[in-house]
Amino acid sequence: MNWSWHNPVSVRFEMGGFDKFLKEIRHDRVALLTSPSFRKRGIVDKVSDLLSSNLVSTHDLIAPNPTIDSIVELGKNLREKHPSCLLAIGGGSTIDTAKGVARILSQKGNWSLRNHLAGQDKILKANTIPLFAIPTTAGTGSEVTSFGTIWDPLTKKKYSVVGKDLYPEIALLDPELTTSLSVETTIASGLDAVSHALESAWNKNSNKLTWSLCVKSLKLALPTLPKLLSDPLNLELRARMMEASTLSGLAISQTRTSLAHSISYPLTMYFGLPHGFACSFTLPEILRFNSKTDDNAILDLAKALDFKNVDSFHEELLLLLDNINLKRYLQKYISDIEEVKKLAPLMLSPARANNNIRSVGISDVGQILEKSISKYIISSH
Amino acid sequence: MNWSWHNPVSVRFEMGGFDKFLKEIRHDRVALLTSPSFRKRGIVDKVSDLLSSNLVSTHDLIAPNPTIDSIVELGKNLREKHPSCLLAIGGGSTIDTAKGVARILSQKGNWSLRNHLAGQDKILKANTIPLFAIPTTAGTGSEVTSFGTIWDPLTKKKYSVVGKDLYPEIALLDPELTTSLSVETTIASGLDAVSHALESAWNKNSNKLTWSLCVKSLKLALPTLPKLLSDPLNLELRARMMEASTLSGLAISQTRTSLAHSISYPLTMYFGLPHGFACSFTLPEILRFNSKTDDNAILDLAKALDFKNVDSFHEELLLLLDNINLKRYLQKYISDIEEVKKLAPLMLSPARANNNIRSVGISDVGQILEKSISKYIISSH
Repeated sequence: MNWSWHNPVSVRFEMGGFDKFLKEIRHDRVALLTSPSFRKRGIVDKVSDLLSSNLVSTHDLIAPNPTIDSIVELGKNLREKHPSCLLAIGGGSTIDTAKGVARILSQKGNWSLRNHLAGQDKILKANTIPLFAIPTTAGTGSEVTSFGTIWDPLTKKKYSVVGKDLYPEIALLDPELTTSLSVETTIASGLDAVSHALESAWNKNSNKLTWSLCVKSLKLALPTLPKLLSDPLNLELRARMMEASTLSGLAISQTRTSLAHSISYPLTMYFGLPHGFACSFTLPEILRFNSKTDDNAILDLAKALDFKNVDSFHEELLLLLDNINLKRYLQKYISDIEEVKKLAPLMLSPARANNNIRSVGISDVGQILEKSISKYIISSH
Repeated sequence: MNWSWHNPVSVRFEMGGFDKFLKEIRHDRVALLTSPSFRKRGIVDKVSDLLSSNLVSTHDLIAPNPTIDSIVELGKNLREKHPSCLLAIGGGSTIDTAKGVARILSQKGNWSLRNHLAGQDKILKANTIPLFAIPTTAGTGSEVTSFGTIWDPLTKKKYSVVGKDLYPEIALLDPELTTSLSVETTIASGLDAVSHALESAWNKNSNKLTWSLCVKSLKLALPTLPKLLSDPLNLELRARMMEASTLSGLAISQTRTSLAHSISYPLTMYFGLPHGFACSFTLPEILRFNSKTDDNAILDLAKALDFKNVDSFHEELLLLLDNINLKRYLQKYISDIEEVKKLAPLMLSPARANNNIRSVGISDVGQILEKSISKYIISSH
């Protein structure tokens, strides 16, 4: 029953607050990290104009699922620029990259991120430079967590860079930044937010504070996400999704994620399935799996969300996935359910799967996958 | 619709965690601040044993409603001891005193707390020494806020010492510390927690995050507080109240309090009515008053708490105050309703009353007082 809470991020939700925030930055050596689309959308030029000579470096080549090598390379380049802060504008990949870079910059030149992620090269000094995180998707939660996901295509492994020194100093939430997202990114990131809330709720580390945040996050996201598809420029809907995302981000900042995320990583690594789909298509079946525990955690959650029982909660999640046309996205990346099930032994990373309120084995994962995918993907066998 | 959130306190809820926490303190110049009852209960001796020579100062004379003079005097004495941290063990008065002392210690010797509270003597330097807050009541919330209440009997005024530098570094919540509280203190502090949750919810500064915390806090506190009266040693009930208190403390750390608190201060100042009673006897009538606004904030709150409507929520609050025998406590301090109503003009401090979701005038306060007190106190006129 013991629990703890510590999250030092200063969260600012401000509709249209992006420009104002940039003008308030008092650092004279800012390094901007972002992805190519923000160059196209004029964001890089805007930052450059507003920060003027205080912007000492611009890196706008961050790609999805950031790799160790890309972060090491970026860290090496940035070390020479001596930035006094990092300004990350983008989705989870951008903010996670910034955390990796922040960790590198806080260590000596011969320190190796690769060794560090493999458990060697401990942190010698934990004072990183300040990170200002401006999410442009509503889903990552990375703007309020102390961890980032880093991928290694060489070893086909997914790592986490973790530590209190990696909490952003400020998370600026401006829903206007999300209106130009593609439908696919809107859905994928929205599903990520829903997954975070559920994964934090059916989590051994859940406490009354994180649980309250999950409930509110789900109350916001579940009815909003499908509406966004037909009304993507609606700022009120965008605002609700951004709030939902940050609330569930705050929840996982304390509990971390759980089984759905554990299952997701090999699917992203081996099939390129975007994270938001990979971590959410199993949610209805994990809900049902977890409802069969001794305690009433799932029933309590269902009731807090005004569902009559677990069945109607399960139905609602299935309906959400139908509404956002999950089938189409899954079929784009996955053609054979048997290939997916082969990965089951890789899908139980202890750091995530052990957080699940019900203990889970490889055969459970196989069944969850079967039930989750079979209605979308036909088996070739 | 814009909002912000920043609360850097590290919260640790740990049943029986008091001793362990003391052993973990790595400071070599600890100043203990507490109240006389903790000397009697052996807590001072325990701290002294566990911290040994690292304890450089013990002040165990903190009284309810700390005054400017008492804090200035304590600050003066502590300055000579050069403490590296403050350890506050007690209720709101103790933790608030520690915040006043922390503010004094962070300034130069000729800086005046009295002038500062009156709006002069600005803060010259905002790095205070770390404050470890261990609440022994479940209600203050001060363990997770950046402000403290300081009284001045000379001018009959109530002040706040405020600033991000005053957030405790760690709040240790050990429900076992509350089992020896008197019935009166249990009730008064429990009502304070309820008041914080309601005052944060019907607050112009409320946001989705603080609102979620208020809902959870009320769900914990409303059914638990009456049960504690007949079962004061029940650790599960004590735990729930402590969680409720810290959740609503986190909420007011962002929103501050509102009308009920604004009304309370003159009653404490002029009649000695303990804070927990003063800030809660008006809650049912303020609920009703606030329900008559254009937006549905109060109805939404009622529904989130599973009440059918505002009326049944109002009834529940009245029942709570009856159950904890509010009448007896009010009658102990107040004999004439007209004397109370005379204070109405002093009961609208802008910093609190303006937070209320419905704008409020002196005549409104008069009516709220009349409706709240008339069933308990007979008018002499």
